[in-house]
Amino acid sequence: MDSEAFATLPPPPYYAVVFSSVRTGADEAGYGEAAQRMVELAREQPGFLGVESARGADGFGITVSYWESEDAIRAWRRHAEHAATRERGRAAWYRHFELRIARVERAYGWDAGDGPGRTDAPA
Amino acid sequence: MDSEAFATLPPPPYYAVVFSSVRTGADEAGYGEAAQRMVELAREQPGFLGVESARGADGFGITVSYWESEDAIRAWRRHAEHAATRERGRAAWYRHFELRIARVERAYGWDAGDGPGRTDAPA
Repeated sequence: MDSEAFATLPPPPYYAVVFSSVRTGADEAGYGEAAQRMVELAREQPGFLGVESARGADGFGITVSYWESEDAIRAWRRHAEHAATRERGRAAWYRHFELRIARVERAYGWDAGDGPGRTDAPA
Repeated sequence: MDSEAFATLPPPPYYAVVFSSVRTGADEAGYGEAAQRMVELAREQPGFLGVESARGADGFGITVSYWESEDAIRAWRRHAEHAATRERGRAAWYRHFELRIARVERAYGWDAGDGPGRTDAPA
């Protein structure tokens, strides 16, 4: 269920890039096309593990991409088409963004189908 | 600008709890009230740094809370009212969630007001 929205990831450790942004609202079509293209391109990169994204009606959004290593993140950053699209983002699509790169150390999930017997994983 | 949506954080390192979820859609009012209360309560906890949240029309959402240390995250996890609200979440509000705890190692931001001279921070 919801397999499109949730990233299926290996056990930690791995890396996360948390990208929080507010859109300008300009060039909706260009943004949508580029965002889809960037996800497709990211999926082809060595070390890419998955991506999750949500944006509310207020224009504030969070995208988290997951990677095997910091080297994989650096290589994606240097990718020419990705770099060109980032420039378009700053020129037209984003009013403000924050980017945080983190090492995921623990992870767990829960599904309603797990039933009431399921307890929290230890923190 | 957008000070309500973006967390204002100190320089890394610090910790992030990435909570991705799909709502059931049940008990919208109860959920909204509890979500607001949990943010208020989190802000009172030692070591809490900030929180960002986005949920799309499809019901998929990402909330990232930021903390000074893993100990602060553990203490919040053990908070009685937070624990009780988590139980309500599993019983009624969430169909599925994934939780990842990560150490933020690098961070930077960008604002349209920074102008064209601003270049990317090094990866």
